[in-house]
Amino acid sequence: MPQPEHIHILPVPDTDELDADLQKYFRICEEKLGLVPNVLRSYSFRPQRLRKFIDSYNEIMLSDSGLTKLEREMIAVVVSSCNRCYYCLVAHGQAVRALSDDPQLGEMLVMNYRIAPLSDRHRAMLNFAWAMTEFPAKTTDADRQALLDAGFTQEDYFDICETVGFFNYTNRMAHGLDMMPNPDYHAMNR
Amino acid sequence: MPQPEHIHILPVPDTDELDADLQKYFRICEEKLGLVPNVLRSYSFRPQRLRKFIDSYNEIMLSDSGLTKLEREMIAVVVSSCNRCYYCLVAHGQAVRALSDDPQLGEMLVMNYRIAPLSDRHRAMLNFAWAMTEFPAKTTDADRQALLDAGFTQEDYFDICETVGFFNYTNRMAHGLDMMPNPDYHAMNR
Amino acid sequence: MPQPEHIHILPVPDTDELDADLQKYFRICEEKLGLVPNVLRSYSFRPQRLRKFIDSYNEIMLSDSGLTKLEREMIAVVVSSCNRCYYCLVAHGQAVRALSDDPQLGEMLVMNYRIAPLSDRHRAMLNFAWAMTEFPAKTTDADRQALLDAGFTQEDYFDICETVGFFNYTNRMAHGLDMMPNPDYHAMNR
Amino acid sequence: MPQPEHIHILPVPDTDELDADLQKYFRICEEKLGLVPNVLRSYSFRPQRLRKFIDSYNEIMLSDSGLTKLEREMIAVVVSSCNRCYYCLVAHGQAVRALSDDPQLGEMLVMNYRIAPLSDRHRAMLNFAWAMTEFPAKTTDADRQALLDAGFTQEDYFDICETVGFFNYTNRMAHGLDMMPNPDYHAMNR
Amino acid sequence: MPQPEHIHILPVPDTDELDADLQKYFRICEEKLGLVPNVLRSYSFRPQRLRKFIDSYNEIMLSDSGLTKLEREMIAVVVSSCNRCYYCLVAHGQAVRALSDDPQLGEMLVMNYRIAPLSDRHRAMLNFAWAMTEFPAKTTDADRQALLDAGFTQEDYFDICETVGFFNYTNRMAHGLDMMPNPDYHAMNR
Amino acid sequence: MPQPEHIHILPVPDTDELDADLQKYFRICEEKLGLVPNVLRSYSFRPQRLRKFIDSYNEIMLSDSGLTKLEREMIAVVVSSCNRCYYCLVAHGQAVRALSDDPQLGEMLVMNYRIAPLSDRHRAMLNFAWAMTEFPAKTTDADRQALLDAGFTQEDYFDICETVGFFNYTNRMAHGLDMMPNPDYHAMNR
Repeated sequence: MPQPEHIHILPVPDTDELDADLQKYFRICEEKLGLVPNVLRSYSFRPQRLRKFIDSYNEIMLSDSGLTKLEREMIAVVVSSCNRCYYCLVAHGQAVRALSDDPQLGEMLVMNYRIAPLSDRHRAMLNFAWAMTEFPAKTTDADRQALLDAGFTQEDYFDICETVGFFNYTNRMAHGLDMMPNPDYHAMNR
Repeated sequence: MPQPEHIHILPVPDTDELDADLQKYFRICEEKLGLVPNVLRSYSFRPQRLRKFIDSYNEIMLSDSGLTKLEREMIAVVVSSCNRCYYCLVAHGQAVRALSDDPQLGEMLVMNYRIAPLSDRHRAMLNFAWAMTEFPAKTTDADRQALLDAGFTQEDYFDICETVGFFNYTNRMAHGLDMMPNPDYHAMNR
Repeated sequence: MPQPEHIHILPVPDTDELDADLQKYFRICEEKLGLVPNVLRSYSFRPQRLRKFIDSYNEIMLSDSGLTKLEREMIAVVVSSCNRCYYCLVAHGQAVRALSDDPQLGEMLVMNYRIAPLSDRHRAMLNFAWAMTEFPAKTTDADRQALLDAGFTQEDYFDICETVGFFNYTNRMAHGLDMMPNPDYHAMNR
Repeated sequence: MPQPEHIHILPVPDTDELDADLQKYFRICEEKLGLVPNVLRSYSFRPQRLRKFIDSYNEIMLSDSGLTKLEREMIAVVVSSCNRCYYCLVAHGQAVRALSDDPQLGEMLVMNYRIAPLSDRHRAMLNFAWAMTEFPAKTTDADRQALLDAGFTQEDYFDICETVGFFNYTNRMAHGLDMMPNPDYHAMNR
Repeated sequence: MPQPEHIHILPVPDTDELDADLQKYFRICEEKLGLVPNVLRSYSFRPQRLRKFIDSYNEIMLSDSGLTKLEREMIAVVVSSCNRCYYCLVAHGQAVRALSDDPQLGEMLVMNYRIAPLSDRHRAMLNFAWAMTEFPAKTTDADRQALLDAGFTQEDYFDICETVGFFNYTNRMAHGLDMMPNPDYHAMNR
Repeated sequence: MPQPEHIHILPVPDTDELDADLQKYFRICEEKLGLVPNVLRSYSFRPQRLRKFIDSYNEIMLSDSGLTKLEREMIAVVVSSCNRCYYCLVAHGQAVRALSDDPQLGEMLVMNYRIAPLSDRHRAMLNFAWAMTEFPAKTTDADRQALLDAGFTQEDYFDICETVGFFNYTNRMAHGLDMMPNPDYHAMNR
């Protein structure tokens, strides 16, 4: 039985033994989010990897994009649903609930996005996210064109692909390391 | 028929219109590799994304690790074989041929790693890479333990997971953007 | 977007036009559960079918059995997770949260039961539920024996099979009729 | 090698030790069908479960419905073919042969319904039965609409869903308990 | 709807317009089997291909081998069950019934060989036939060794592989050409 | 680790102990191809099987047909890609490179034919080859018609089916016997 402190299967360094830049980053998380996401504590086992992960994450999920932050979180949840990734479903499911102010939407995307009421734009986006996750080799020009036809720009299309790809990466880190999300997410935005 | 200039399905900026840091990076590639990998030209459509990709790639594939560079390339090829990613199979298949000095090993990992003659260490590593790619949710403690039993350290284990994850990301970028590898790879190290 | 009144894709009779026995049953639900589960309102489109469904449900989920009610709900959630059934995941996920007093256990079973901390008895039970749902034809004597070895009696074994079978039935009713669960479940027992 | 008396993997009570209502029901089966189906003798291990099974079975397969009895048996066979359930294929394959007076139709539905010559109505019905059995989560409004377009009423649609669901339940009981059908079915209606 | 004369989707030459050697072969079939198997009439659309098919078939199924004719027919049925090939299941299912004098064995191999009572030798043989049909790339040395451990000689092993391969070929011919078996098989050996 | 001489897992007779006709055939191969393909040396373990294999191979791959030799090799590679057969991918991948004078085409068909630039005729042909290999039972009249609509004659259609079937056979022989291709193929036509 994982004890309360189970974060992943490898050792987790004490935060106050981390380099100053990472300690500072963790403090900022604490202030802005109310917690240090366990994924960061897990990655701190390999500090240089943590720095790159933070950079990529912030660029893909938080920087300027034609995709809203909610749309990026919706993709994160659907990819993680296809891959059945507990960590990412808990953390990004909460983000969808928070950003959409629609707790049921979060649950629908976690469990089976097909039954959610979605705009044509969002259905096209999430169908693509699922298909690219499940059988990427079967992607055809028709699949690519469907997104452009749904009104996404070329930049948006690039960003959809990268968001899909990124969570296919993080899902495998979470599965491989048996990462557990912070318990705090569960009760938020219900 | 794709014309010689087919790199991906989106516009590709002229190199001399890129920011100075990226132009410099491309020149270094040209000098060290004899070519600018098309993945970089593809990403240059979104310059800030390119910078993060270069950082992550170099950290995961080239930085210090208990995994040799050949081992990381072997993982890259097996993940890409499972996902049937043309771009990554061509580019990293060449890397396996070059680093191993064993052209048949490169072909075996591209086509069906199971028939390759492999050490127990490498078979455990590649079985894990395949399983984590195909059905990540079915990973169990027994799968995780098998790698530690095969002699990988905890740091190595972290790095195997991240390499597997990273190519699950890049494979989807290549499929999504229909990236084509530089033709130069095909004849190398045969 | 489904309007508040979306229960399933077929017409839903007004409760006060149902036969007296069904009206009475709905009143009892209201009193004991605080709501009439939408599955019952959905089935009321075919009143005689509703009567049989209630009988079967109560026998399988609520009657005397060597399986606790929580164990039966755990099976319900894992079968529904394999089949990605929104209705049953929402309704029975709440039941697991309530009966176990462990909100995270409910979420784990919804998302990926493999990562949950489970007793050997429960892991054997849920592995069987998943396997029988995903590929029933591949069940072998070894799978059957594993449950008896885990301490289940023959009666328990019968009841596990029937619970697994029953949710494979209800999941398909919910998918076929596009049943939506009562919104009340979402916030309960978080 | 299963001995002639192999009915399922659990003990089978002597019929004359069953409660009077069940003994009577078995006598009626004997008179009307010439045999007591082994599924009933199997369920008699849990007598109250047997009563509910009989009720549900008779309601779904024999009561008034816009679906003919043959149509319900066709669905039973196609679901059982997808799940490769020996018991149900033998018993309901015989029913299709008997009710259709077309032994080849029975065999086609057992082996691969796609190659059977079918009316558009029946092809739509059986395509739906297969899809709902194989990947229920992928059911979309287009799938649901296809049946209404093929001329089925809303009541028929409900009954198709329930028949599909019911055999997904019985198939798992038969697989779980390793039920063997009465040998008598094999030679009938050839 | 296929008319009674449906043999495959291409034209079928009149037997009396075939070359003398093929006419003679068909007469021998008629005398020895009581029918000309439709597969031969189907192939007669391409007479030279028919000659090679007859040669291969007779070598693999009828020539000297450490495998009995029944064992070869058992493999044929299990491969065809995995591929759900109507033609081969009907024709070779009848052969298993005839050669084994056990009609139920024929049905079990058609529907789900796993539930059949089988010797260890035959279970190993049929597990291998299924695995090599379903996921040939996943064959490992352990799978190969399991057959030698079950008492098969090296020649037997070669012949098992070739029988499995051959029906993976004929199944695709039957599916591609939509071949229908002679109706005569259905009632035989019940 | 397979030694240089690894041809398959069974004993390989010395060529000069084979019957005269087979020795002669091997000499002709040596003269015309510069090598004796290992598949022939592997089959020589069962000389009569080798004779039939040669006959079938030459009829299907080399005799008159509306399909060009390149088209037949393209089918061989795509079937072998679906089945991930190392032997056939190496040997027939080389044939595609040689016959097409397009080394990249060979690689594309080995790795993921979907990304290759293909005429409509060839895309229809290869889509069919893949579908018939992966899920033959799902072949429908629409799939069959698609090839006739793409301009293939009835004879061509027969030959496509047989080529697809044949490599589904050889792939399983190669997997079963763990055949290794002659190393010579790797460097040819790059």
